[in-house]
Amino acid sequence: MSKLVIVGTVAFDAIETPFGKTDKILGGAATFIGLAASQFNVDAAVVSVVGGDFPQEYLDLLSNKNIDISGVEIIKEGKTFFWSGKYHNDMNTRDTLATELNVLADFNPVVPSDYKNAEVVMLGNLHPIVQLGVLEQMETKPKLVILDTMNFWMDCALEELHNVIKKVDVITINDEEARQLTHEYSLVVAARKIHEMGPKYVVIKKGEHGALLFHDDNVFYAPALPLEEVFDPTGAGDTFAGGFAGYLAKTEDVSFENMKNAVIYGSTLASFCVEKFGTERMTDLKSNEVHQRLEQFKSLTQFDIELT
Amino acid sequence: MSKLVIVGTVAFDAIETPFGKTDKILGGAATFIGLAASQFNVDAAVVSVVGGDFPQEYLDLLSNKNIDISGVEIIKEGKTFFWSGKYHNDMNTRDTLATELNVLADFNPVVPSDYKNAEVVMLGNLHPIVQLGVLEQMETKPKLVILDTMNFWMDCALEELHNVIKKVDVITINDEEARQLTHEYSLVVAARKIHEMGPKYVVIKKGEHGALLFHDDNVFYAPALPLEEVFDPTGAGDTFAGGFAGYLAKTEDVSFENMKNAVIYGSTLASFCVEKFGTERMTDLKSNEVHQRLEQFKSLTQFDIELT
Repeated sequence: MSKLVIVGTVAFDAIETPFGKTDKILGGAATFIGLAASQFNVDAAVVSVVGGDFPQEYLDLLSNKNIDISGVEIIKEGKTFFWSGKYHNDMNTRDTLATELNVLADFNPVVPSDYKNAEVVMLGNLHPIVQLGVLEQMETKPKLVILDTMNFWMDCALEELHNVIKKVDVITINDEEARQLTHEYSLVVAARKIHEMGPKYVVIKKGEHGALLFHDDNVFYAPALPLEEVFDPTGAGDTFAGGFAGYLAKTEDVSFENMKNAVIYGSTLASFCVEKFGTERMTDLKSNEVHQRLEQFKSLTQFDIELT
Repeated sequence: MSKLVIVGTVAFDAIETPFGKTDKILGGAATFIGLAASQFNVDAAVVSVVGGDFPQEYLDLLSNKNIDISGVEIIKEGKTFFWSGKYHNDMNTRDTLATELNVLADFNPVVPSDYKNAEVVMLGNLHPIVQLGVLEQMETKPKLVILDTMNFWMDCALEELHNVIKKVDVITINDEEARQLTHEYSLVVAARKIHEMGPKYVVIKKGEHGALLFHDDNVFYAPALPLEEVFDPTGAGDTFAGGFAGYLAKTEDVSFENMKNAVIYGSTLASFCVEKFGTERMTDLKSNEVHQRLEQFKSLTQFDIELT
């Protein structure tokens, strides 16, 4: 089994959806990625930073999932990164109500020495310079580097973003961001252009419409499970990435065929994430529930046409 | 092999897309449905109406595909239904520039006597009273009635629409229309409500995001093939419906499992339709091209996870 390094935010979120609202709860990209990856019992470490206000119970929650948190720096006199948002009725759009960077503003990631030889690195959404800083600390070249990013960095750190995109094997990005990055409307053309920027594999996330995996001329489409109700979309993209990275770390097979399975696992875990607020659903998720939902994914997409 | 009755418009379209524009060309729901269904060599008849201005070569084009056109009334002194539209850059939205009902305003469909015992009836998008009028002419109860409709009838003939929805087995409808018809945002909940209105099967078309087939608690998701370029989306929904109906008429199996295949065939044919203006791509489509694209659909969606 491969080691997995996860870099990203560990944070407080306050969320409002049509179904209710929360006070400050556990959030952050690395948190969701770590919880999803923990489904595969991989040897994973989170690299992040929190303030003195961050509850020990949240750190324990990650440790109890066998996630190494020695790379989570605690800045006692600082405050934890805080994000607050309100989702509209369609659940596809949201307003950011508050973004307080706090300790994240000066985040200087340190990869624990035991993980500097990790085979898989998952660069969660963060400033591209921080993402690059993590890659540069690796002592052996990772077998697979996965990058998640967002439009914010395209607006304000495009050159740095291109520098890190160059160095990764897989990028996960949503459809609108893929269009923004390439100035192409067609996702097929956009994926090809991103491929030319460096990544051999391009995953385009389309929210309720699923995700596309591109590799050379091959494409795979994983739908999202049609749900009666999306309770809170926060963390769904990170959960997808964590499931994707965790499955690949566990199986140690980075072929296109196996990456299809990784995308399905990512979609499956994301379908749980949105059922409750924040990390609530992911912290008590049982493996038999995951297996049951994978069977649902199979019947959702598998067909048997005999070509005559 | 079952007989298939298709009712819908046979029309002139004038189309403008970012790739170019056309003069009046062959269009209409029944035209696209018929051309798609003709891929299965079924015994199909189109019931429609045109004016004296409609070129014989267009009628011959349908006849040459073995489509019975004895139910296409020609009103010599009238003019053919004309629609003109302009697509925006994203190809998902369009402005209607002109709608001239002409002979369609007084259309009184007559099902040819040879087809009053057809096993499959495809009610293309038309006034619900006209759709109902076709059903009432059937002398034996069809094995399968499929209805396509649009938001226009929800706005101006909702009660009549409900009367015909009650009597059909399958409805094909797009996502926004399903939401409008049910006042539900979740497509899972919307499909359940439409199911309660009558149809045992509900197909929700999501354009570039594919299509969902619902039946009781079962759901199947057929993606749309990711395309480099959508040249002209006109007729894609009708082509989908025609492929769906044609495949079911040919295979005479209306089980959920076989309906999955019908949805895949519909999506496959629709992926060709959008490659050229109007009916151009569908009129010269070869069966080996269809088979090749079905293989693409398989590799697009099929995966092989072993659950441990």
